[in-house]
Amino acid sequence: MSAVAESVGAPATRLMADALRMLAIDAVEAAKSGHPGMPLGMAEIAVALWDRHLKHNPRDPAWPDRDRFVLSNGHGSMLLYGLLHLSGYDLPIDELKRFRQLHSKTPGHPEVGVTPGVETTTGPLGQGLANAVGMALAEALLAREFNRPGHAIVDHRTYVFTGDGCLMEGISHEAASLAGTLKLDKLTVLYDDNGISIDGHVQQWFADDTPARFAAYGWHVVRAVDGHDVDAVDRALQDARAAGKPTLICCKTVIGKGSPSKAGTHDVHGAPLGADEIGATRRALGWPHPPFVMPGEVRTLWDASERGAAAQAEWTQRFEAYRKHYPAEAAEFERRTQGTLPAQWRDAVRAMVRDVDCAAESIATRKASQQTIAVLARVLPEFLGGSADLTGSNLTNWKSAVDVHADDGGLQGGNYLHYGVREFGMSALMNGIALHRGHVPFGGTFLTFSDYSRNALRMASLMKTRAIFVFTHDSIGLGEDGPTHQAVEHAASLRLIPGLDIWRPCDTVETAQAWAQAVERGGPSCLLLSRQNLPFAARSGEQIDAVEQGGYVLRDWPDDSASQPRVVLIATGSEVALALDAVAPLAEAGIAARVVSMPSTSVFDRQPRAWRDAVLPPGVPRVAVEAGVTAFWRQYVGLEGGVVGIDSFGESAPAAALFTHFNLTAQAVVDEARRVAHGAP
Amino acid sequence: MSAVAESVGAPATRLMADALRMLAIDAVEAAKSGHPGMPLGMAEIAVALWDRHLKHNPRDPAWPDRDRFVLSNGHGSMLLYGLLHLSGYDLPIDELKRFRQLHSKTPGHPEVGVTPGVETTTGPLGQGLANAVGMALAEALLAREFNRPGHAIVDHRTYVFTGDGCLMEGISHEAASLAGTLKLDKLTVLYDDNGISIDGHVQQWFADDTPARFAAYGWHVVRAVDGHDVDAVDRALQDARAAGKPTLICCKTVIGKGSPSKAGTHDVHGAPLGADEIGATRRALGWPHPPFVMPGEVRTLWDASERGAAAQAEWTQRFEAYRKHYPAEAAEFERRTQGTLPAQWRDAVRAMVRDVDCAAESIATRKASQQTIAVLARVLPEFLGGSADLTGSNLTNWKSAVDVHADDGGLQGGNYLHYGVREFGMSALMNGIALHRGHVPFGGTFLTFSDYSRNALRMASLMKTRAIFVFTHDSIGLGEDGPTHQAVEHAASLRLIPGLDIWRPCDTVETAQAWAQAVERGGPSCLLLSRQNLPFAARSGEQIDAVEQGGYVLRDWPDDSASQPRVVLIATGSEVALALDAVAPLAEAGIAARVVSMPSTSVFDRQPRAWRDAVLPPGVPRVAVEAGVTAFWRQYVGLEGGVVGIDSFGESAPAAALFTHFNLTAQAVVDEARRVAHGAP
Repeated sequence: MSAVAESVGAPATRLMADALRMLAIDAVEAAKSGHPGMPLGMAEIAVALWDRHLKHNPRDPAWPDRDRFVLSNGHGSMLLYGLLHLSGYDLPIDELKRFRQLHSKTPGHPEVGVTPGVETTTGPLGQGLANAVGMALAEALLAREFNRPGHAIVDHRTYVFTGDGCLMEGISHEAASLAGTLKLDKLTVLYDDNGISIDGHVQQWFADDTPARFAAYGWHVVRAVDGHDVDAVDRALQDARAAGKPTLICCKTVIGKGSPSKAGTHDVHGAPLGADEIGATRRALGWPHPPFVMPGEVRTLWDASERGAAAQAEWTQRFEAYRKHYPAEAAEFERRTQGTLPAQWRDAVRAMVRDVDCAAESIATRKASQQTIAVLARVLPEFLGGSADLTGSNLTNWKSAVDVHADDGGLQGGNYLHYGVREFGMSALMNGIALHRGHVPFGGTFLTFSDYSRNALRMASLMKTRAIFVFTHDSIGLGEDGPTHQAVEHAASLRLIPGLDIWRPCDTVETAQAWAQAVERGGPSCLLLSRQNLPFAARSGEQIDAVEQGGYVLRDWPDDSASQPRVVLIATGSEVALALDAVAPLAEAGIAARVVSMPSTSVFDRQPRAWRDAVLPPGVPRVAVEAGVTAFWRQYVGLEGGVVGIDSFGESAPAAALFTHFNLTAQAVVDEARRVAHGAP
Repeated sequence: MSAVAESVGAPATRLMADALRMLAIDAVEAAKSGHPGMPLGMAEIAVALWDRHLKHNPRDPAWPDRDRFVLSNGHGSMLLYGLLHLSGYDLPIDELKRFRQLHSKTPGHPEVGVTPGVETTTGPLGQGLANAVGMALAEALLAREFNRPGHAIVDHRTYVFTGDGCLMEGISHEAASLAGTLKLDKLTVLYDDNGISIDGHVQQWFADDTPARFAAYGWHVVRAVDGHDVDAVDRALQDARAAGKPTLICCKTVIGKGSPSKAGTHDVHGAPLGADEIGATRRALGWPHPPFVMPGEVRTLWDASERGAAAQAEWTQRFEAYRKHYPAEAAEFERRTQGTLPAQWRDAVRAMVRDVDCAAESIATRKASQQTIAVLARVLPEFLGGSADLTGSNLTNWKSAVDVHADDGGLQGGNYLHYGVREFGMSALMNGIALHRGHVPFGGTFLTFSDYSRNALRMASLMKTRAIFVFTHDSIGLGEDGPTHQAVEHAASLRLIPGLDIWRPCDTVETAQAWAQAVERGGPSCLLLSRQNLPFAARSGEQIDAVEQGGYVLRDWPDDSASQPRVVLIATGSEVALALDAVAPLAEAGIAARVVSMPSTSVFDRQPRAWRDAVLPPGVPRVAVEAGVTAFWRQYVGLEGGVVGIDSFGESAPAAALFTHFNLTAQAVVDEARRVAHGAP
């Protein structure tokens, strides 16, 4: 408890809570939009947590051993902005006045990277909770990896605010079930149990016994806490520390508390109170100050800068003692938490790619991926692999991988996570793991089930998390499992998410390069990999390097860079082989063809125009080949070009029969190439 | 219990179960792929349900009052094919021999519409369970609507098989929570609790107390049933009938039971047993018959044709009695369950569109949608609306709508469902409701959260369910809520799902027409609607009709069909106004421009070439305008055309500020049009 708060007693906590309330309703009023209900209802809970428990230093939001705070009910963003502003983060009052305005540091929902102290971007319900499970997992694993007897340099907690909305979402089940199974005892969730969601009283559509549900997940549950009693919440938080399990604290609250005529109704959830009601609220709370004016007393009560700096200084001292005893571990810890790659990284990649090229194996790219993982894992102890219960199919594991699991002694460390059949939860956990820092998470499922996790992929892009999504069985090449399991539109539709890099490599070398690019990137990548074997493509050293550009010339016939081709065949992944097979028949027909392998369209699109024009000479007709929807490729081939693809769902049959059935053959490429080449000037 | 089974006693049930086992392992072996583990493990459960409880008529899989059976763990498809074949459906043994082959009636996962008796397409885990909740809800609502004292013409149950995979998925939480809240007492789920998933023993990643979890949802739970004891399962099924709540029957089973060396391991989940192990299984079970040979005794035991025909005949008699007392209701029931529209439908639509055109209102398309719903609801009692807790934002409700809810008397009827914050669950329930027949479901959320439900939208397309997905707040026009809530890539990426119709209307008339098309369609549609007001566009009668073609000429300058435009502006939704505003400035610059409104690209693409060429004259340069990713539009404008759009995430700010910031303005359209017009020959 802060010394100041202690000396002033109960009125102090009230003042602190009301300060949060007033900032929230005044900012929402100024913006003429926003969500006052939650900040009004959770103000005391916020006081209990932030003033009496949260370990943080407003002067250094990047302190590795800080507690993590996640506002999973992100629409209550003004509560968080109030907390950050008052406790001393670099978030001046002027930014609060510009709540929800263009380029302010106070966007409608909290965004990591925009506002100091915001740990993750929330708003899409349920995902904050899942991110937090990822953060708590990252903490637990780092503690087991780096702590030494007498040297607990990793020892922080993860706190989450959540409302009914998050708990209705399916992802809350996935995340909470996994957190319980893994016994993440430093995770504490504060549930704003106000009985109201946007449509009204939740009883009509959400009658769960939520405490019993979480107990069924193996959580410690503190029931029926008065969420407007700071001391009661404080006691529950103390209780959570000793639980040995993740803890859910169920806080009974009144949404919009403080608003005389709107409290307890869904009208207060997502709209300004209006001037009259704000006036009434001011009077009811006895708050005489004008909007955005915080009295010195409140500022003193809330300021956590000194406390935070002292806490971090104490940790730094401990860390220096650790460094003395374990210099290598200390340096590695710093590297890992800063997210830099090891010094030998580039050499290791170069050697790997050279070896892979020499081996010249014709194997499935999922298998190539597994071999790549095994090699990279030797230099990347930060790799944290996993799969949504498809390990043997995704081939995301490697020989020396150690399963993360829990036993009677709690979580046991490792570097491979069996996420269970929880694609969305896995992806959102990976985002949390990446945001925490210390690991590079990757996780697998079938490409078609990227649908289940799609919004987490979007959030990864928005947050620029270094997470690597491994999607295998990337086309009708999956075969007999049929249309439910065959990706058709997925490659194209994932490429439409801004900032997400999609790689669909055609062989072992491209797979290795794609992995290296994904690891080096400051943002998320998806690797789309084949179930079936793919032929190795021979390349020059220059071509091997060119894979990094996302699209490059793989073959020219005649092999004579002076002359222009008559047609350019653009292909990805398993269809590159079809394009290569089309070259000879086209040559026989007197048509000079070029094959461009395009493993990543977004990476190619980021190249200078000179590169793009050299690879795809303007004016030369083009044919794209990919076992997926054709519309996407018009941006490369234009209206006059050709696309060999599939615009319907797949079928259940052996893969070879399907490629024939859907006319995805070298002959189809030849036919299309002849058509467009003859149409050309 | 069937008379035959009763007379033969225990050995009969064993014979019946082993017949299912042998068909499964022999078919998987013949296909060289498939999932034997589940059929081997659930064989006795299947006997208990199908032989002693399931009300169905193999000779008429469309009997409206049949029980619904859903195999949510759809990878065990051979269990279902065995059941359908043996009980007398039109699924000859030759089809089982062609398991997983091209165009067989036995695809890798069960597909509705392909195999008689399959109620829904399953495989993507968790969704079958949610479909079943939708079916049980549809039954309960139809019973309350159509049954009369002494005349229970709707009175059937819904049964689900589920495994660990479905129960790990988040959607199982959404669906089960809603089923409990709504007290769907005719829903019975049989849980194949074998402790194994693909990665191995689930305890390491799935340690839930599942019975306690479902009890927390308000379900009746029958714990620890021996899943290999037909009588025990039978008793649990009896118990479920009296529960007054949805029931979960937890069956302890051994995966792959019958296989001497693979039972109880994850090796048996998804691969053929191999000839040796199949031989050993034959010996262990004492099954002397060659593959696909079923002895007459087994056929007699399983055949449900006569029993089923008698049950349906009895129902038909009751229905005819009902018809005598309630002829109008009987006719309406038949119409509804056949899925035909009322006789006055087309007239009602025509009148509505005329009225909407006369009113000429400039309102948000979400508001226009609400007005449309209100009008159509008068002639469509089958409308079952709802929202994932955004009713006041999606405007999916209407004045005379009645909330579906449960009280102490169980489910109370109505035509509006508060789905709670469960986008995926809602969409999969809607699929189940549509598959059951009797309602036309529609449900709303923000467009950006279509991500959460994406695979259910895909399944809707694959299954061709008549479900209408209402996605409002369809662009940066959403404003202050920021990038997490602003759809950018969604319109384009939904359009890539084969068979899904996307409508993005620009005003009241297009909204009304889009709704009419969605209702008339034998498949799913998405309506993408604006938060903000949009100006009404004046149209001729011809143009009003042309909306149905998906894309049509809205303006030509000069208004002279003889001359060709110099540039065609293609726009959708809120951006049609920008295109219209660009016409005059272009005219001043001497450029004749045409505005094509393209509310549905897929519908436009299905039009004859003559229509498409008349709307988009080949060779005339084009500019597309949509507040979303630009790549999609290259298929219409080519490489040389222009696209005014957004290729990054949005920002948190008032909508007007955002349109300016992202340069989505009439001036930007003018600039782009001038550029492409001058580049033209």
